[in-house]
Amino acid sequence: MNINSSIGIFDSGLGGLSVLKQFIRFLPNESYIYIGDTARVPYGNKSPETVAKYAAECTEFLLKRDVKLIVAACNTVSSVALDTVINVAGDVPVVGMIKPGANAALRATINNKIGIIGTRATIASKSYQNEIEKISNVKTVSSYPQACPLFVPFVEEGLQNSPAAKILAEDYLCKLRNEGIDTLILACTHYPLLSHLIQEIMPGINLIDSGEHASVSSLRLLAELKLLRDESEKFIDKPDIKFYVSDLPQNFYQQAQSFLGFDVGTPELIVL
Amino acid sequence: MNINSSIGIFDSGLGGLSVLKQFIRFLPNESYIYIGDTARVPYGNKSPETVAKYAAECTEFLLKRDVKLIVAACNTVSSVALDTVINVAGDVPVVGMIKPGANAALRATINNKIGIIGTRATIASKSYQNEIEKISNVKTVSSYPQACPLFVPFVEEGLQNSPAAKILAEDYLCKLRNEGIDTLILACTHYPLLSHLIQEIMPGINLIDSGEHASVSSLRLLAELKLLRDESEKFIDKPDIKFYVSDLPQNFYQQAQSFLGFDVGTPELIVL
Repeated sequence: MNINSSIGIFDSGLGGLSVLKQFIRFLPNESYIYIGDTARVPYGNKSPETVAKYAAECTEFLLKRDVKLIVAACNTVSSVALDTVINVAGDVPVVGMIKPGANAALRATINNKIGIIGTRATIASKSYQNEIEKISNVKTVSSYPQACPLFVPFVEEGLQNSPAAKILAEDYLCKLRNEGIDTLILACTHYPLLSHLIQEIMPGINLIDSGEHASVSSLRLLAELKLLRDESEKFIDKPDIKFYVSDLPQNFYQQAQSFLGFDVGTPELIVL
Repeated sequence: MNINSSIGIFDSGLGGLSVLKQFIRFLPNESYIYIGDTARVPYGNKSPETVAKYAAECTEFLLKRDVKLIVAACNTVSSVALDTVINVAGDVPVVGMIKPGANAALRATINNKIGIIGTRATIASKSYQNEIEKISNVKTVSSYPQACPLFVPFVEEGLQNSPAAKILAEDYLCKLRNEGIDTLILACTHYPLLSHLIQEIMPGINLIDSGEHASVSSLRLLAELKLLRDESEKFIDKPDIKFYVSDLPQNFYQQAQSFLGFDVGTPELIVL
């Protein structure tokens, strides 16, 4: 790997495109390889062993393409299989979602009540809760976890702005609102697409997008390793991204457009 | 200067606290020196010569305190006096608001229509328009500048959520909305406090907070210069910030609280 190598990002499906978007925002001059394991999505309700096996396969795929950084965009992978990714990656640095997200939430909260919404697997793993407990030495923080299993299929169907999504969000979030949390971790890559809705239900709340903070952590890591490309003086119209998917979902283009805001072209179908 | 030196941030008044907030978000382990030149605020309607003189004095004050980076948080200073700051700063790196903000807007826009709202001085200087033109090599971008002189006093008075602020914002922004812009640069440090209101008037628009992107640019710069402190494993409850003001406004504490979300203690009164 060298300064011109790509940054590799993988996710169980298309949710990780919200993480990729944050990377492009802060590191527009890098090139990216994105894997969406769309043939085996979702990971959120599978066993840790199976998730670890899939994560290892995605990592190996990226390593063959000489990436300089591996980003486990999937919160489920980050929660239950990050050690596997790190082991497989060897010398290549790895960034997950939990540490950056938990850190950002701790810095943002004032009343020390942090909500966490994610898939059943992420919530059950207690990954965010444990990380918050580990790093909050002087603060006594209460965590309020809430699994929101239907948010992913709603986003996948493009129904994130529907009246039903609003009622569903109200149902999922009313308990957290009643607890008086002031900070909410979006512990699933799909959820940033619901942030407008969530903000409406809980005005004034700090929404933590783990992908945003993972991208800034990666920027720092790569800068310190002298592995960042030069900042171009000129604007680059189209980010340099190569997309791989293990299955081509019917509405891939609309989903990708709504995640990224631009046309991603045709992804390459792969077998992992 | 060394790795433990502070990051120096200066502004004409308290608006720069919104920039400081972004620095704390991404660089919580650094120490900061903040100057608010509250005795001579606002800079936005003064001549470029006077603004340059004041900016030089703020820079000299920070240099005496051995800072490792100087951040011109004020968009007016960044627009008309950044060269002065760079000259006075000598070997100490300087970050302004224009380049990071213009770059972020160019990356965010899809329909290539970018609105810019700021003080009369910032808008008249055409700083953002010129920077966008300079760096947008492949894109043809239209800029829509709009001075919003009353936004600053509304925020200073703590009236950013009042019905009058809403009517005022509607007046200022309706032209930009009719132009169909999809991206809006908040080219004044006070405006992030109005972002909720602006988002309400222009739903779905990309709001660009130059301070956010200036903080990430600074992170990169300091990382490459090996001047970043280590990331602490443990959470630091209270950021290490020393506040200096040239006058103590009556409602300083409420304003600072609403900018930063935490109590800043008593600032030190200085003569610049």
